[in-house]
Amino acid sequence: MQRRGLLIILSSPSGAGKSTLSRRLMAWDDDLRFSVSATTRPPRPGEQDGREYFFRSRDAFQAMVASGEMLEHAEVFGNLYGSPRGPVVQAMEEGRDTLFDIDWQGGQQIKQAMREDVVSIFILPPSMAELERRLTTRAQDSAEVIAARMAKSEAEISHWAEYDYVLVNRDLDESEARLRTILSAERMRRARQPWLSGFVRDLKKEFESR
Amino acid sequence: MQRRGLLIILSSPSGAGKSTLSRRLMAWDDDLRFSVSATTRPPRPGEQDGREYFFRSRDAFQAMVASGEMLEHAEVFGNLYGSPRGPVVQAMEEGRDTLFDIDWQGGQQIKQAMREDVVSIFILPPSMAELERRLTTRAQDSAEVIAARMAKSEAEISHWAEYDYVLVNRDLDESEARLRTILSAERMRRARQPWLSGFVRDLKKEFESR
Repeated sequence: MQRRGLLIILSSPSGAGKSTLSRRLMAWDDDLRFSVSATTRPPRPGEQDGREYFFRSRDAFQAMVASGEMLEHAEVFGNLYGSPRGPVVQAMEEGRDTLFDIDWQGGQQIKQAMREDVVSIFILPPSMAELERRLTTRAQDSAEVIAARMAKSEAEISHWAEYDYVLVNRDLDESEARLRTILSAERMRRARQPWLSGFVRDLKKEFESR
Repeated sequence: MQRRGLLIILSSPSGAGKSTLSRRLMAWDDDLRFSVSATTRPPRPGEQDGREYFFRSRDAFQAMVASGEMLEHAEVFGNLYGSPRGPVVQAMEEGRDTLFDIDWQGGQQIKQAMREDVVSIFILPPSMAELERRLTTRAQDSAEVIAARMAKSEAEISHWAEYDYVLVNRDLDESEARLRTILSAERMRRARQPWLSGFVRDLKKEFESR
């Protein structure tokens, strides 16, 4: 294996640009895997099982938690959400990175479970007014839902200091370039390049056989 | 201050391309400061005090060590070498990074003294034969000196696993690009962006005054 796959956690209040940036990163790197969450919330029109989410009953979800199949899980607005472990472990072993679009609770649990392999990035909006504008322009939510999202946003932002990197998303192109730079550098870390041990062993052999 | 300056440690056996890469990084970033070492070895023709080294007597050098003015120091081939602390601390406070072209001993001491602010990078040669070829082509050293450098190289390489990043320098352009990526990413780390605290405080104020 050339290198060990990373777990990249991308968190932000909704409306800060996290989903768009996730999509752009996926388009940039074909080997990047998106972690599809499991949830107990019912599918919305157009959503497909296994694409947006794995839609599971509450019983099925809790059985997965009980058997250790969830890397992290949390209850949000009355629904359970979680990240299935199997595909993540497989990607890591194949040397492929997994991108998690999750909140601070999920991020914290993954960090605790997989320390060395995690890179966590928090995306901040340039201002709260801009965040509200983006939530409003989407025009997919009622005023009550937007107000609830704004309150949740403030709570989410309060966890910014638990992340390895924090970006202010003023411009999507600039933010995407920064994310690429972070990923490229983190992949180069010694601890993520297991082939180096063999390479140095060969240098030593070559030196001794001169 | 926009951000806190980093201490970038670049180590490698001689001939692996460290000096060339250091020069290229300095040319890339005008704000990057090169840490000029102090030494007790006599100047060679063409060397200027304060440019290649600060040339000091053994007494003067040891007085600097005694008063804590040396960030690190070590004896190599009978001469003392060390990194003066003053200019490094000043650069950090100005938000400028300092590049150290030093061996593993110096790197380890700086890492111990300044943990969070250090990024350490080790440059490996593609092969020992290539390393020897580069040392020989320089044509500035005798066969004995080259043999001594090769032995020192092997000892230096044995410390590769103490570094944050390890690069195999197969191609100077590629290695330079990788170093730029590492530096750019490391500068973005949350812990190195002290302005973020104020930024998030302002977001919170903005949210509360809505």
